[in-house]
Amino acid sequence: MSNPFFKNNGPFKISEIIKSLNLNINDLNKNQNINDIKDLLMSKENDITFFHSKKYNDYAKKTKASFCLTTKFLKKKLPNSCTPIVVDNVLLSTSKITSLFYPDSINDYFDQTVISINDTLFKDKVIFGQNVLIGKNVSIGNNCKIGHNTIIEKNVIIGDNCSIGSNNVIRNTFIQNNVKILDNCVIGKHGFGFFPAKGNNLRYPHIGIVLIEDNCEIGCGSTIDRGSMSNTIIGKNTYLDNQIHIAHNVKIGENSIIAGQVGIAGSSVIGNNVKIGGQAGISGHIKIGNNVEIGGGSGVIRDIPDNTKVMGYPAKNIREFLRDNK
Amino acid sequence: MSNPFFKNNGPFKISEIIKSLNLNINDLNKNQNINDIKDLLMSKENDITFFHSKKYNDYAKKTKASFCLTTKFLKKKLPNSCTPIVVDNVLLSTSKITSLFYPDSINDYFDQTVISINDTLFKDKVIFGQNVLIGKNVSIGNNCKIGHNTIIEKNVIIGDNCSIGSNNVIRNTFIQNNVKILDNCVIGKHGFGFFPAKGNNLRYPHIGIVLIEDNCEIGCGSTIDRGSMSNTIIGKNTYLDNQIHIAHNVKIGENSIIAGQVGIAGSSVIGNNVKIGGQAGISGHIKIGNNVEIGGGSGVIRDIPDNTKVMGYPAKNIREFLRDNK
Amino acid sequence: MSNPFFKNNGPFKISEIIKSLNLNINDLNKNQNINDIKDLLMSKENDITFFHSKKYNDYAKKTKASFCLTTKFLKKKLPNSCTPIVVDNVLLSTSKITSLFYPDSINDYFDQTVISINDTLFKDKVIFGQNVLIGKNVSIGNNCKIGHNTIIEKNVIIGDNCSIGSNNVIRNTFIQNNVKILDNCVIGKHGFGFFPAKGNNLRYPHIGIVLIEDNCEIGCGSTIDRGSMSNTIIGKNTYLDNQIHIAHNVKIGENSIIAGQVGIAGSSVIGNNVKIGGQAGISGHIKIGNNVEIGGGSGVIRDIPDNTKVMGYPAKNIREFLRDNK
Repeated sequence: MSNPFFKNNGPFKISEIIKSLNLNINDLNKNQNINDIKDLLMSKENDITFFHSKKYNDYAKKTKASFCLTTKFLKKKLPNSCTPIVVDNVLLSTSKITSLFYPDSINDYFDQTVISINDTLFKDKVIFGQNVLIGKNVSIGNNCKIGHNTIIEKNVIIGDNCSIGSNNVIRNTFIQNNVKILDNCVIGKHGFGFFPAKGNNLRYPHIGIVLIEDNCEIGCGSTIDRGSMSNTIIGKNTYLDNQIHIAHNVKIGENSIIAGQVGIAGSSVIGNNVKIGGQAGISGHIKIGNNVEIGGGSGVIRDIPDNTKVMGYPAKNIREFLRDNK
Repeated sequence: MSNPFFKNNGPFKISEIIKSLNLNINDLNKNQNINDIKDLLMSKENDITFFHSKKYNDYAKKTKASFCLTTKFLKKKLPNSCTPIVVDNVLLSTSKITSLFYPDSINDYFDQTVISINDTLFKDKVIFGQNVLIGKNVSIGNNCKIGHNTIIEKNVIIGDNCSIGSNNVIRNTFIQNNVKILDNCVIGKHGFGFFPAKGNNLRYPHIGIVLIEDNCEIGCGSTIDRGSMSNTIIGKNTYLDNQIHIAHNVKIGENSIIAGQVGIAGSSVIGNNVKIGGQAGISGHIKIGNNVEIGGGSGVIRDIPDNTKVMGYPAKNIREFLRDNK
Repeated sequence: MSNPFFKNNGPFKISEIIKSLNLNINDLNKNQNINDIKDLLMSKENDITFFHSKKYNDYAKKTKASFCLTTKFLKKKLPNSCTPIVVDNVLLSTSKITSLFYPDSINDYFDQTVISINDTLFKDKVIFGQNVLIGKNVSIGNNCKIGHNTIIEKNVIIGDNCSIGSNNVIRNTFIQNNVKILDNCVIGKHGFGFFPAKGNNLRYPHIGIVLIEDNCEIGCGSTIDRGSMSNTIIGKNTYLDNQIHIAHNVKIGENSIIAGQVGIAGSSVIGNNVKIGGQAGISGHIKIGNNVEIGGGSGVIRDIPDNTKVMGYPAKNIREFLRDNK
C-alpha cells in the first residue's frame, strides 16, 4: 500500500521541480513530466527519488526513477537511466519536493470537515456513543463500536468487528479486522520529523499512514504517528498496553506484546513474537529480530538478533546484565 | 470488598465446569453446585479456586474451597476438603472458568448505556460541566464536581467532596471522599493481562475494581487499571503526578507520593509513606516496604525492605549508587 | 510578566499575616500594609518575601522586601530594610501567606464559567470544531484554529496564527504567535507541589503561568504545569514530541528539540539549542546549558555545562558512556 490517502498534485514538469529548489540546471528536457516522488525501491520511470546515504547503495543501483536528488559523491552509484540532481541537503530538498506533490501532508490541523455520525450512513451500521464525529473518506466495516467523543477524522478505513473506545482522535489510518483501540489515543498524526532551523523549524512531509493489522489491541493514552515516506505498521495480533508511543515509520511484527509506557523511536523495525517490558525505549533506525525479549526499563540502542533476551541501558544480553548486577 | 460490580452468573454444576475445560473426570458428584471462583484465601465451601505456584503453598494448605484448579505436583498441598482438578495450564483454565462466572469482565467496550447527567437525579446535586455522561449503577456523594466531557461509565461509586476534572473515562471504580482526579485520565479499564496465543490472544477476565481512598489526588493523563482477581488500590492521601500508569492488582499504601511518568507493573504492592521519583518503574509482583524512597528514573526489579532509599537500574541502595557513580 | 491572571486579594496588614501564621510578634507596626508576596529578587518595598536556603544568600542581601519569612540562622543575611519573620518551616509559611493573597491559585477545579465558542465573539474570528468551550479572560488573535472538544478555560491569551488541536484543556497560559498544540494535552494546571502531611497533604499555591513563545510545537498527550512562584516557559521555536511532561517552573530556551516521553522535573532550566532524546528524564532544580545534547533514556541528575553531549543514568559525557558500554 502506498499513500492511499494523500492527493498527489502532480505531475510536475522537471523544470518546475528544479526551479522550486532554486537550482539552475541546463541540460535537461525541461518539459518532461514527473509523476510522483517515492523512495529508491518504490519509484518507477518518470518518478523522482532521493539518495542521501551510502547505506542505500544497493537500492540506488536498481532504482527505476528517472531523477534522483543526491550528492556529488553518491551520484555515481545511480544507473544511467536515472539523472542525478545534486543538492546541498538531500533530505531538505526531498522535503520541499514532497511538499510540492503532497501539500496536505505537512500540517495536521484539526479536521474541519467532520460531521456528527448521526448525519452519516454509519448511523444504522455502527454502535456509537455521544458526540462521535466522522470525517471525509472514512469507511467502517460490520459490527463495529465507536465510543463517546471519538473523532474519526479524514482518511480512515476500519474493518469488521472493531471496537474503538472514547476520546480518541484517528486519521490517515487503516485498521483491519477485530482490532480494539481503548481510550484517549491519538493515531495517525504526523511524526516528530522536521529540519531544525533557527527561529522556525521546517516540517518534514508525512505521506505514510498507520496500518493496524487484524486482532491488535492498542491501550489507553497511546500515540501512534503515521509514516513520512513509508507506513507505520502494527502487525497482526500485537498488543500494546497503556501510554505507549510509536513514532513514524516504525514497523512491529505479529504476535508481539508491548507493556506500558514503552517508546519506539522513528523508523525502527521490530520482529514477530517480541516481548517488550514496561518503560523500555528503542532508539530510532534499529532492527529488533524475531522472538526477542526486552526487559522492562531497558534502553535499546543497537540492533538485536533473533531469539535473544536483553536488558539494561544500554541493553545487553540478560545473562550479562544479571551477572553485572548481582 | 469483593467484586461488588460484576454479576456472578453462577452457580454452575461442577460437571458443567469440568466440561467447559474439555476434561473428563468421573469420580465427582456431578450435581454439586459451585457458587463462585475466588483466590485461595478468599474462597469458601462450594467455591472453586486455583493454585499454580509453590509460592502459595501456605495459602493452599488453608483454603476452604471445595475444588481447586492445579497441577499434579502441587495438588498434594491441598487439604482433604478440597478436590484437585489437574489441568495443563492453571491460569488459562482459571481464565476460562472466571469467564464462565463473569462474562462481562472480559471486554471493555465503551458503555452504551450512559446518558447525559442532565437526565439524571445528579443534575441537582453535582456541579458539572458540558457533555458529562453517567452510566448505570453510579452513585455520587455530596459536594462533588465533574468536569467537561467526563464519562462516568457503569459501576462507579464516588464519595463526598470529590473533584473530577475534564475528559476522564471512569468505570468499575470506588472513589472515597475528598479525592481529586485531574484531566484526561482513564480509570478502571481491564489490565494488560491475557494469554498469548499465536494469531489471537485470549484475554484474562478482570473482576476486580479500582479503589481510590480518601484524600488522594490523581494527576493528568494517568491510567489506573482495575484488578483481575483482586482490586487495584490507591491508599489514603496518596498523590499521583501526571502521566502515571498503575497496572492491575497494584496496591499502594497511604501517604505515598509518586512523581510524573512513573509506571508500576501488575500486582506489585507499595507500602505507606513511600516516595517515588519521576519516571521510575516498578516491575510486577514486587513488594516495596514502608517509608521507602525510590530515586527518579530507577528501575526496581526486586523487593525493597522498609526504611530504605534506593536508586539506579536495577535499583540499589542509594549510598551504593552514588559511590558507583561519582 | 508576573501573575497577570491571579487576583491579588491584598493588601493585608502585617498583623493579619502574623496572625495567620499563629505567631505572636510584638515589636512590629501592626498597621503596616503589605501589598504582595514575591520571591527575593522580585519583591519591592511593602512586599513580603521568603528565604529558606543559603543557596539564595546573594539574592537575600539585595532584597527590597519589607518583610521576609526565614529561619533564625538565615535572618542575619537580610538587609536592615527587611524585617525577618522567623518561622519553623519557611516554605509551609510561604504557602500559607501566598494562599492568603491568592486564594484562587490552590485548587484547579474544572472551570464552570466556560461557554460554547458559538456564544462568544470568537465565533466569527476563529476556525473551530465541535464542542469548543471558552472561559473568562480569554483572548485569541487572528487566524487561529481550535479543534473539537478543546476547552480553553479562564486566563488564556492566544496570539496570531496558532493551531490548537482536539481534546485539549488549557488554562492560565500565554501562547504567543504561530504556535501549534496537537491533541489531548493539558496545559496550565497546578504543578505537583505540596507539603506532605499525614492524612491530608497541603497544596502549594501556584500563581505562575505557562508561557509558550513563538513558533513552538507541543505534541499529543503532553502535560505542561504552570509555575508556583515563577512561570513555566517554553522558548521560541522549541518543539516537544508526544507524551512529554514539563513540571512547574521549568524554563526551556529557544530552538530546543525534545523527543517523546521526556520528563523535566520542577524548576529545572534548559538552555537554547538543546536536544533531548526520547524518554530522558531531567531531575528538578537542575541547569542544562546551551547546545547540550542528551541521549535518549538518560537520567540527568546534575547540571550540564554548555556544548556538552551526555548519555546514561546518571548521565555522563557521551564518550565516557560509550567507552564504559562497548
